[in-house]
Amino acid sequence: MRKLRIFLSISLDGYFADENGDLNWAHSDDTEFNAFVAGNASAGGELVMGRVTYDLMAAYWPTAVAKQNDPVVAEGMNSLPKLVFSRKTREATWANTRLTNDDPVDTIRVLKREQGRDLVVLGSGSIVRQLATAGLVDGFQFVVVPIVLGRGQSVFADIGETIRLQLTGNRAFGNGNLVLTYIPAS
Amino acid sequence: MRKLRIFLSISLDGYFADENGDLNWAHSDDTEFNAFVAGNASAGGELVMGRVTYDLMAAYWPTAVAKQNDPVVAEGMNSLPKLVFSRKTREATWANTRLTNDDPVDTIRVLKREQGRDLVVLGSGSIVRQLATAGLVDGFQFVVVPIVLGRGQSVFADIGETIRLQLTGNRAFGNGNLVLTYIPAS
Repeated sequence: MRKLRIFLSISLDGYFADENGDLNWAHSDDTEFNAFVAGNASAGGELVMGRVTYDLMAAYWPTAVAKQNDPVVAEGMNSLPKLVFSRKTREATWANTRLTNDDPVDTIRVLKREQGRDLVVLGSGSIVRQLATAGLVDGFQFVVVPIVLGRGQSVFADIGETIRLQLTGNRAFGNGNLVLTYIPAS
Repeated sequence: MRKLRIFLSISLDGYFADENGDLNWAHSDDTEFNAFVAGNASAGGELVMGRVTYDLMAAYWPTAVAKQNDPVVAEGMNSLPKLVFSRKTREATWANTRLTNDDPVDTIRVLKREQGRDLVVLGSGSIVRQLATAGLVDGFQFVVVPIVLGRGQSVFADIGETIRLQLTGNRAFGNGNLVLTYIPAS
């Protein structure tokens, strides 16, 4: 059985993207934090994302700039298998990427029954929302960035019911980021 | 100079109240957490709140049930001086309460120049929003409750600009609540 977890940066007011979909506010130059992200990225897993997140990431990680600024994360991001849900059929230009227009919930339900790498959803508000509502998330890893955005996109908007979680870990970094890990409350 | 801080429970998706204004999801029976809140309440300070929060609190803390369930917090809440901003003029029934229809920003700006107890804003979305926008908040104390509400009221809705904060403390409790303290980033 493969586990599925969410890895998501959020502002203190709960947004994963500002109202224009921008994620730059979550960027950090903190060495310790970036090493943590690099460790996360190189720990394996199959990355899962939606088209919007894919477009953002595919435009950055394969570039020379990314390889120079974040060599370890870039290596992980480029080499790990990636599953991208996109309603528009088109070709994947990023290495090790599989694009599908299949339904995320059905697809993940099947994949979770298999043996293999854990599945890690990056960003991707609408995918997280669908998987969380369907009860398919085994773990949440939130990076709480010390900023209040005021307006933005909520990953859990209109999930329809509340989700109780159990805190399993918290770690503070010098840049004020907090990594909080949760599992669904039993 | 009196300092002003915010004490606020929020869900993981950044709401301080659900869409009906209900706060029951933040309630906890955790002994250690309740002792922390009691310590907070008995540490003094002048409590500041808006009419909605006042109505909720004034209907609970003076009752025999509150005195039995949370004796220390009830004693603090009932005995501390309270400043309540309400556009409707009426009488305060709760002990040690001053109701005013003056402007919150102007009032707090004057109070902060004085000597005296620190000012602690409890709940009160619209008051927090106005004071934060005016740059009058010296410290934020968030209780992050391990729940995703999906919908709710955001205390920082439409503040107009982002606020960068600096993390100064974090403490996890057995019930999964995290108390996070921040000051405005310099």
